Amino acid sequence: MTGPLDGITILDLTHVLAGPYASMTLADLGARVIKVERPGTGDDTRSFPPFKDGASAYFATINHGKESIALDLKDVEDRTVFEELLSRSDIILENYRPGVMERLGYGWTDLSLRYPKLIYGAVSGFGHSGPDSQRPAYDMVVQARGGVMSITGERDREPVRVGASIGDIAAGMFLAQGVLAALLQRQQTGKGQKIDIAMLDCQLAMLEHAIALTSVTGEAPRPCGARHPSITPFETFHAEDGLFVIAAGNDVLFARLCEALQLPLATDPRFETNQARCENARLLKRLIEAVTLGHNMRHWIELLTEAGIPTGPIQNVAEVLQDPQILARNMVVDVLDRAGHPAYVAAGNPIKMSTLADPTTRGPAPTLDEHRQAILDWLAQG
Amino acid sequence: MTGPLDGITILDLTHVLAGPYASMTLADLGARVIKVERPGTGDDTRSFPPFKDGASAYFATINHGKESIALDLKDVEDRTVFEELLSRSDIILENYRPGVMERLGYGWTDLSLRYPKLIYGAVSGFGHSGPDSQRPAYDMVVQARGGVMSITGERDREPVRVGASIGDIAAGMFLAQGVLAALLQRQQTGKGQKIDIAMLDCQLAMLEHAIALTSVTGEAPRPCGARHPSITPFETFHAEDGLFVIAAGNDVLFARLCEALQLPLATDPRFETNQARCENARLLKRLIEAVTLGHNMRHWIELLTEAGIPTGPIQNVAEVLQDPQILARNMVVDVLDRAGHPAYVAAGNPIKMSTLADPTTRGPAPTLDEHRQAILDWLAQG
Repeated sequence: MTGPLDGITILDLTHVLAGPYASMTLADLGARVIKVERPGTGDDTRSFPPFKDGASAYFATINHGKESIALDLKDVEDRTVFEELLSRSDIILENYRPGVMERLGYGWTDLSLRYPKLIYGAVSGFGHSGPDSQRPAYDMVVQARGGVMSITGERDREPVRVGASIGDIAAGMFLAQGVLAALLQRQQTGKGQKIDIAMLDCQLAMLEHAIALTSVTGEAPRPCGARHPSITPFETFHAEDGLFVIAAGNDVLFARLCEALQLPLATDPRFETNQARCENARLLKRLIEAVTLGHNMRHWIELLTEAGIPTGPIQNVAEVLQDPQILARNMVVDVLDRAGHPAYVAAGNPIKMSTLADPTTRGPAPTLDEHRQAILDWLAQG
Repeated sequence: MTGPLDGITILDLTHVLAGPYASMTLADLGARVIKVERPGTGDDTRSFPPFKDGASAYFATINHGKESIALDLKDVEDRTVFEELLSRSDIILENYRPGVMERLGYGWTDLSLRYPKLIYGAVSGFGHSGPDSQRPAYDMVVQARGGVMSITGERDREPVRVGASIGDIAAGMFLAQGVLAALLQRQQTGKGQKIDIAMLDCQLAMLEHAIALTSVTGEAPRPCGARHPSITPFETFHAEDGLFVIAAGNDVLFARLCEALQLPLATDPRFETNQARCENARLLKRLIEAVTLGHNMRHWIELLTEAGIPTGPIQNVAEVLQDPQILARNMVVDVLDRAGHPAYVAAGNPIKMSTLADPTTRGPAPTLDEHRQAILDWLAQG
């Protein structure tokens, strides 16, 4: 597949999610990704459920289209192969505990001397500096420590984790950005550099509103359920058949909403301004639901959409995978098996670019060490 | 500030969050960002609370270091200035409803003919294609429709929104990746291209685990509170003084946890395997909390960290802003006022790169149209 990263080779030592997510994005932009996996078990996610046809669908969802070679980086012969790969690669990605690569003799200082063009992308729980650099991290640990859990959940109940693995994924996204930026810089300087992404840092980087609130008011925000903290109505409402969202973010939209729902509240002093609506939010929700419970979601979403009021359903993931807009955008793709038949489902590439093909399928996820011979042959051609 | 995007000029028509978040990231990588704002009110976030010293801290948290010029894109004279800016810019960013730029005569087709090197980055709720392309979108609407709310919240209770604005922020991050990739491609081809990011697409792109589960089992996952859906113990626990996380993700870690807590459960058949632990999760949580309630969080976090068990606090945002690791990583920066004094607080840049300076401050957020004269002078120099 051609794209902005055509001709770029990534040697990917990462495992589980943050790193593989980044290399998946870069593969979607045209890069060749060679996973270097631990012999025997390989990437941990090969053993993560759910399984289909004897292999992990979870692994397939993230590692489609990549190549795999199994190397023991403490073995002399495998190190020779690895170093040949380094000399032929543009980027190395790793997510080991900081210090592991140094002990292997493959830390940034070592590599930059031998491979000056190599870009070194590291992702770890807490980063390659700081007092907690050495701590192991999991998605949930950084979600907890990084603040997002403290603002997610129902008002006055315990915090919940974000159901998506944003601890890993935000880090993967920032790693991809760093790699792209380093490639740009290398065009100017001819040299590589090290990128050091900490999952915890990335959590804070997503909390702009909470940071502003905390630093100005002196109080940390708390969870507020399924509503916007400071705009009303901007939350979920019950229809006859389920929950949907109305986001009437200003007085004009609120007036239109009242008209659409035939609720004479637009000039009611209890609801006339956003501030008043916030103060009387519980009452307003009841008044609105007294109407919306009378029809199903589809009825209200169509009606409000026609009136130009932002609205929409709460969909579960099965519904999202069938959403006509999502399908029209080619956001559900088939991961093929070796015979070319659809075997797994994955998210499409959200980075739509006018020069980049947007295929409806992805190549197979590799079996462990599947590409050893092909890779060795390629290295031998020099 | 120098960096990978040194010498790159971004003409930023975006407002609110997704677009400005992307241009903020690109500014942190060295780009010059010129906000083109609507005369009179400017970017909507100028009126978003919280306020400090008469200006929006929210606006400052995202728009620090950018320049501002106010232009009415329907006014003949302002259009002349705008077109001069286009001829001097590398990238244009917009987040209008799809079609608005075309009606202004500044759609991609128009611009690519006149400015063939220009990279055009668009972010919108649903994208520049598909049946719902024209719908307005807010963060909460796409969080709801895109599936993440359906897996966030307490088990058997209503879904909640993610407290961070990930509907906007994920889109901003993918937009930044697209822009960087387009800059790379332009090095090869000499030409710009259009990037089309849909907030809804980006939501699905973060749901790899849920997609795998849904497509293989046929059932959409549901929220599971503050725990991992399929690993136990991997959740929040009560200490004497609050909630903290223990992520003992496998049998080895569980055995170490039992030792650390002096709970003789490692070989108890009810808890011997992950599957058994998941089946008896509620009981296990009570048994663990019977111990952890006996001391404060700090006690347990230190003890478990020493034993190599991933653990950590749930911090609110005030605590995160004082977290020693976060501070050591320079993840809390001061946004200065014009006199050079710290005025607001913002997240630092999580993309740490060995050739990129990582300053502890950011330049001021611009007042509306602040840089008009300087910009006009710069254009006049030609």
